Amino acid sequence: MYLAFGTGCAHPSATIVPHDFENARFVIGLQPVREVIRVHRTDVLRVAIDQRNLPRLDAIERYAKDQGVAEILRVERDHLDRWARGVEHQGVVAWAPPLALLELETIVEDPKLLAVALDQIQDPQNFGAIIRSAVAVAGAAVIFGAHRSAPLSTATFRASAGAIEHVRLCRVNSVRQALLDARAAGASVVGLDGQAPLELVDLALDGPTILVVGGEHEGLSRGVRHACSHLVRLPSSGQLDSLNASVAAGIALAIVAVQRRAPQV
Amino acid sequence: MYLAFGTGCAHPSATIVPHDFENARFVIGLQPVREVIRVHRTDVLRVAIDQRNLPRLDAIERYAKDQGVAEILRVERDHLDRWARGVEHQGVVAWAPPLALLELETIVEDPKLLAVALDQIQDPQNFGAIIRSAVAVAGAAVIFGAHRSAPLSTATFRASAGAIEHVRLCRVNSVRQALLDARAAGASVVGLDGQAPLELVDLALDGPTILVVGGEHEGLSRGVRHACSHLVRLPSSGQLDSLNASVAAGIALAIVAVQRRAPQV
Repeated sequence: MYLAFGTGCAHPSATIVPHDFENARFVIGLQPVREVIRVHRTDVLRVAIDQRNLPRLDAIERYAKDQGVAEILRVERDHLDRWARGVEHQGVVAWAPPLALLELETIVEDPKLLAVALDQIQDPQNFGAIIRSAVAVAGAAVIFGAHRSAPLSTATFRASAGAIEHVRLCRVNSVRQALLDARAAGASVVGLDGQAPLELVDLALDGPTILVVGGEHEGLSRGVRHACSHLVRLPSSGQLDSLNASVAAGIALAIVAVQRRAPQV
Repeated sequence: MYLAFGTGCAHPSATIVPHDFENARFVIGLQPVREVIRVHRTDVLRVAIDQRNLPRLDAIERYAKDQGVAEILRVERDHLDRWARGVEHQGVVAWAPPLALLELETIVEDPKLLAVALDQIQDPQNFGAIIRSAVAVAGAAVIFGAHRSAPLSTATFRASAGAIEHVRLCRVNSVRQALLDARAAGASVVGLDGQAPLELVDLALDGPTILVVGGEHEGLSRGVRHACSHLVRLPSSGQLDSLNASVAAGIALAIVAVQRRAPQV
């Protein structure tokens, strides 16, 4: 179905204030919508685009049609503003399939698992940026707590720059308990701690591995720290005491990825 | 001199709307001000703090006194709002010595030089975040263009999370020409490019090295690309086509730092 609102179409305006599709995930902005279409194609429920004929908007409409998106609307900017509730939408929003969350047991079955676990990352920007680093650098899974952690919000999706469509996500009731369970299942649980005497590069992490990243200012909480099998630091000049959490995750994953590819002596 | 405005002090209100110190650098927010005090101590010209007795504000006042800051004011929040012009100041601002900019010739004299050069990074957030990564991971210098690049603004300083106080900065008229000059002086100039066949980890970069980071969406511009002695990619899952620029800089610096420490075979 293709509805061209505002261009002589017969549909009453009321129908273009969409009810929430059951469980649908609301996606805002050009890059996130493009990525959701690229990955989910005909499973995308609806794309709504500013009706003005701007090249970037016409391009996303063509792309959505080419990929077989079920419903494509051109609407007044006001509608988008209302749906996006203050988030900068760049003229396009979409309703996408809900995120699939995986069970911890499923994730740790992977003998080559590389995952990032988040300890008290409460800022959606940081959460999304870490998802982006995890996916881009190493296709890593992301484990996060259902409580005291940033939610899977629109801000998180946006900050992930499309990575949310690719990431294996695992939401757990207690990060500490999940790490203990993962260790019991054979995973190495490696906490990043700027004060640790050991360096990440000195560990051999060939089996299933979970890298644990703490909040920018607080670092790892005590319970989570004790749940780790190793505490390590990253390469550091010693001039600043903290890295951005998504940079730390990216560096840690890159180091493990490089190590895993190196010929085993 | 220590002035306690709003607490019975005799100074007229007019004097607490500071003229700009000549060349002074205006610093906004708790962490940036704390870092500027930590590094410059008695060279900090003035710190102004919200007069309300909040623990974090009293703490920064004590810290400024302990470090010998020349002038410490407690002022009404309105003053801070006006000085910070909409930037979130968290109750504290400071006037600090201007940044020292280094000449390219000085930087490339360092036989162990590790630097990041920015090609068309126009977002102050990105600029500041890259400075943070450069300093924290490897104490790297940062080379940036005087034109078509984010300015050394308050937003940049804030995003650097204090790293601006430590970084060796080099502003050049043309990034492309600077890279050519650096090559002529013996530096390896390594452009980060997700499509490059060669991986950074496969290069030996023991001599002076400049890593070149492009804008998030455009990547390296043509002229800058041609000025590089090598083009390399970073570890990547292939699932996303771009990394955040500060994450890319952090990963590249960490890889070179690890390599430089490895025993030479």
